[in-house]
Amino acid sequence: MTAPESARIDWSDGQEQSPLAGISVSVRLGRELSAAMFRLDPGAVVPRHSHPNEEFGQVVEGALTLEVGDERGHLVAGDAFLIPGDLPHAAVAGPDGCLLLECYAPPRDPFAAPAKEATS
Amino acid sequence: MTAPESARIDWSDGQEQSPLAGISVSVRLGRELSAAMFRLDPGAVVPRHSHPNEEFGQVVEGALTLEVGDERGHLVAGDAFLIPGDLPHAAVAGPDGCLLLECYAPPRDPFAAPAKEATS
Repeated sequence: MTAPESARIDWSDGQEQSPLAGISVSVRLGRELSAAMFRLDPGAVVPRHSHPNEEFGQVVEGALTLEVGDERGHLVAGDAFLIPGDLPHAAVAGPDGCLLLECYAPPRDPFAAPAKEATS
Repeated sequence: MTAPESARIDWSDGQEQSPLAGISVSVRLGRELSAAMFRLDPGAVVPRHSHPNEEFGQVVEGALTLEVGDERGHLVAGDAFLIPGDLPHAAVAGPDGCLLLECYAPPRDPFAAPAKEATS
């Protein structure tokens, strides 16, 4: 048994998309927020992009290099971040890959439409 | 090095509150969502309550019994849930405790004001 049926999220239920090389993601859209579980292969690249949605991220396994604006940091399992809306950001998975949980508000399906290319 | 300074969340930076017996929580408020990392001792109880904010949860470590409305489920590390706003819910940590990550939208500090008692 997992969570009560009315609230259950099963990340392994086959709803994963593979929108970019080396990246798979499972997305759940709520009314006020969305949640997404990303599995990144070693060295997988999330190109620089931006969106108006605020973005929270938690590294569950592995490691990630994250660029936000003109800053860069290295995150490992247990590290977290909160990116304001419209701030360009990018990421590269570490040598063992990365399992990354994200939440967006307002809700966002990260690959429902092409990401806006960052201009700065 | 962890996340870039402008986006960094350090769950271990001493901002934890201990609002209920056996429960400590660290909260970060954004503009559109908030994130909270709960550490529950074995058997710790989150009393039944409700709030208008939508609530996402991810079990990071340990186990949790979760009641949502009139349903009950048992979650372990890797399991997740999404509770609509205003739906009464409660939780009890498993025998080894539970590390639980939650996000709320709109943003919510779960212990900034007394939780509304569920009437059903």
